[in-house]
Amino acid sequence: MKFLRYGEAGAEKPGILDDEGRLRDLSGVIDDLSGEVLGELGTLSSEGLPVVEGNPRIGPCVGNIGKLVCIGLNYSDHAAEAGMDAPPEPIVFMKATSAIVGPNDRVMIPRGSEKTDWEVELGVVIGKTAKYVSQEEALDCVAGYCVVNDVSERAFQTERAGQWTKGKSCDTFGPVGPWLVTPDEVGDPQDLALSLRLNGEVMQQGRTDKMIFPVAHIISYLSQMMSLQPGDVIATGTPPGVGMGMEPPRFLVKGDVMELTVEGLGTQRQEVGAE
Amino acid sequence: MKFLRYGEAGAEKPGILDDEGRLRDLSGVIDDLSGEVLGELGTLSSEGLPVVEGNPRIGPCVGNIGKLVCIGLNYSDHAAEAGMDAPPEPIVFMKATSAIVGPNDRVMIPRGSEKTDWEVELGVVIGKTAKYVSQEEALDCVAGYCVVNDVSERAFQTERAGQWTKGKSCDTFGPVGPWLVTPDEVGDPQDLALSLRLNGEVMQQGRTDKMIFPVAHIISYLSQMMSLQPGDVIATGTPPGVGMGMEPPRFLVKGDVMELTVEGLGTQRQEVGAE
Repeated sequence: MKFLRYGEAGAEKPGILDDEGRLRDLSGVIDDLSGEVLGELGTLSSEGLPVVEGNPRIGPCVGNIGKLVCIGLNYSDHAAEAGMDAPPEPIVFMKATSAIVGPNDRVMIPRGSEKTDWEVELGVVIGKTAKYVSQEEALDCVAGYCVVNDVSERAFQTERAGQWTKGKSCDTFGPVGPWLVTPDEVGDPQDLALSLRLNGEVMQQGRTDKMIFPVAHIISYLSQMMSLQPGDVIATGTPPGVGMGMEPPRFLVKGDVMELTVEGLGTQRQEVGAE
Repeated sequence: MKFLRYGEAGAEKPGILDDEGRLRDLSGVIDDLSGEVLGELGTLSSEGLPVVEGNPRIGPCVGNIGKLVCIGLNYSDHAAEAGMDAPPEPIVFMKATSAIVGPNDRVMIPRGSEKTDWEVELGVVIGKTAKYVSQEEALDCVAGYCVVNDVSERAFQTERAGQWTKGKSCDTFGPVGPWLVTPDEVGDPQDLALSLRLNGEVMQQGRTDKMIFPVAHIISYLSQMMSLQPGDVIATGTPPGVGMGMEPPRFLVKGDVMELTVEGLGTQRQEVGAE
């Protein structure tokens, strides 16, 4: 099943796509696609729900995201591109939840930025609390998968003293969605194609089988250090083709258009603006 | 004024201390000490509110904290103790909000941890959205101040590949409170004594005038990179005396008791347990 949230920012309603791809209104059944509800998506169905007419804005596919945990350098081919060794353990950082926007909202280059970059990623939505779970148990905690753009300001991230948080947390740097797709429909999360186009030109292209630490490993690993809770989202790292890896490096400018796709999870499209 | 939240974890009610230090119930006036309400604390008063009898648990003094942003190495005397140069710009990292607990709740050493450490800090609670604010405007966005214990697992933080998040985000690693004290009552945030006792023995002792980047600087700086929103909390760094700085290093063990005080903001007391 494919779930989404639609409507004005901050006032999104939950919805579900039916077999014909029509958006149907779930707000008579659940308040939001957030928290504990995410552990019970299997009980929901589009049958008999009102069809939503028109073309509403799509919001982030999860409401009230508790934490947005990100994994760095998790694709062997991207690590090679960056000239880095594969890390011995997952590299973990956090993106401020205030950065989260809908999949087609504008991405805004912050003031003073000259190195705003893109990163298409597979997002994992937690549906059940995970604490000290094994790799075997890990995928049972997943509510579904989605596309995440881990937008990154490289100078803020690496040239401004310590820790990556500064370059990862700017407002609008976290488009999430369009759809939360349930695991039964996704199949093997380690067998999905990802791509990102900039103004129509393919920049990133990869496959989740190149992850150094697969989804089950990441969930188990994180759960040894912090509880993962319903409504948390994990961005699992990016394949090769980011702007800072190019010769010469290439970064976003106002007017650029990013299109991101993960196989089976839909497409994001963001116009780039400037603050 | 001093505000707090009391009751069982996850079901706290808002309260206020009256002039005699009695806890009075604010739940008939506001739903919670969270979000937009934090920008209007000046309109509240304890007058005529019911006195709360007994000795309820105290929760984190802010509900639904959006993000917990932390500043590293921000005391000149602590940087010297750690053998580090003073950073040229604030070092910023994020603590998972799932780590937040009440000021007197147990702090739990995670499985496999041998280096769990303490850090008394001045916490800043945001009351109004701050985005691209100047240092002159910055303190207008502050709802109040509180005590934060930035509990840290040093091996997870620095010996486990990249980024500090792992050692900062374990469950129970973020005691916040007991009180949210309004700025008029705190006075100059750069003139407060901080201390931490372990089993009665003074470990940390400092003064906020030793901050390399004062509160107004931190808020202005962060707001260039991400919006700060009502209900966000900033932990502003720790003075000398953490366990990893000792010769030999000393870390928490089950049964230890930490007591943390910031001048005018009350005292936290945590027993240490193990998971």
